[in-house]
Amino acid sequence: MRILDISMPVHEGMMTYRNNPEKRPRFQQFRRFAEGGVNESGIAMNLHSGTHLDAPLHMLDGGGTIDGIDPARLLTRCRVVDLTAVRGKVRRADLEPLTLAAGTFVLLKTANSYSDDDSDATVTLAADGAECLAERGVAGVGIDALGIERGQPGHETHRTLFEAGILVLEGLRLADVAEGEYTLVALPLAIRGAEAAPVRAILIDD
Amino acid sequence: MRILDISMPVHEGMMTYRNNPEKRPRFQQFRRFAEGGVNESGIAMNLHSGTHLDAPLHMLDGGGTIDGIDPARLLTRCRVVDLTAVRGKVRRADLEPLTLAAGTFVLLKTANSYSDDDSDATVTLAADGAECLAERGVAGVGIDALGIERGQPGHETHRTLFEAGILVLEGLRLADVAEGEYTLVALPLAIRGAEAAPVRAILIDD
Repeated sequence: MRILDISMPVHEGMMTYRNNPEKRPRFQQFRRFAEGGVNESGIAMNLHSGTHLDAPLHMLDGGGTIDGIDPARLLTRCRVVDLTAVRGKVRRADLEPLTLAAGTFVLLKTANSYSDDDSDATVTLAADGAECLAERGVAGVGIDALGIERGQPGHETHRTLFEAGILVLEGLRLADVAEGEYTLVALPLAIRGAEAAPVRAILIDD
Repeated sequence: MRILDISMPVHEGMMTYRNNPEKRPRFQQFRRFAEGGVNESGIAMNLHSGTHLDAPLHMLDGGGTIDGIDPARLLTRCRVVDLTAVRGKVRRADLEPLTLAAGTFVLLKTANSYSDDDSDATVTLAADGAECLAERGVAGVGIDALGIERGQPGHETHRTLFEAGILVLEGLRLADVAEGEYTLVALPLAIRGAEAAPVRAILIDD
């Protein structure tokens, strides 16, 4: 059993959405070893920084929260598809040639996995790409971008996915992962009432 | 495949170590749905609040950090043992009758799982209990207390476990889990250089 870590390490200098420094995690040291033999610290972070799972509440008024998502849905077979040749947005035309059975959790591997910069060149999922995945009945979609969409004021990509009950996993790192089938483990912290939560995501290559 | 969630939900009113309100997570809302169709929030939390994994750095000067722990060690067979009759501390005498093979990840189910109060009555692991687990060569130990020890100025329990390379998983909720064997999934957030990290922990009853 080979495990592939597909999570972003969490640290103060990590890449953030639109390189916004306010979205960087901050750390606080409460106790130091020299003062009693204990190191104890805390973190403050935006729930959408680093590898994280969105819940429908992120973009749907009154939508479902992260703690309402069945953990079994994040412990599942998945399919990594290589879209590293795509520039800009992953569109319907990029997804239609793929054989994606209903219930598949699909991870979109793009050029983003080879970049530590979040910019307007970051590859995202177009609204018509989201529609295509909804039509196929996929169970979830993961992407190696901190946001699965960008610059769409109506948030059509997120809304289409959430309205179809599709899970949205963001901030993956897939550079070392070949196209193929794996078991995905990506359980979100059980934050009550939240619209997202950080995740340690791995793939099992079995 | 039946999944048992053994994590504490994370929320502002959650139980904390010694009921210290400073150890409660705090939430911040950055964007609200009414102001642009997006809910976006953040969390500030002590890394030892809720269900979490300790790294050796917590109690060993220069010890290993949470991001240095191989994820494969937190995706493993485990054994839940029923110690709900124990009061005070789990001692060597409580553990010696158990058949614990080397390499076992053992979860100690105590009366704590039936209480939402953290107090001096909270059951912890005695230093001689930790010595017993080290002698058996267990791979990890989990407990349904926010701290596996209490009131030991030299932190002998943690130190004995860390010096033996034993993982320490705290803040489990085991009320609904029967004694027996399971698969444990408890991957910590990959926080660089940290002495602990929150975990969403589940058991798979297969």
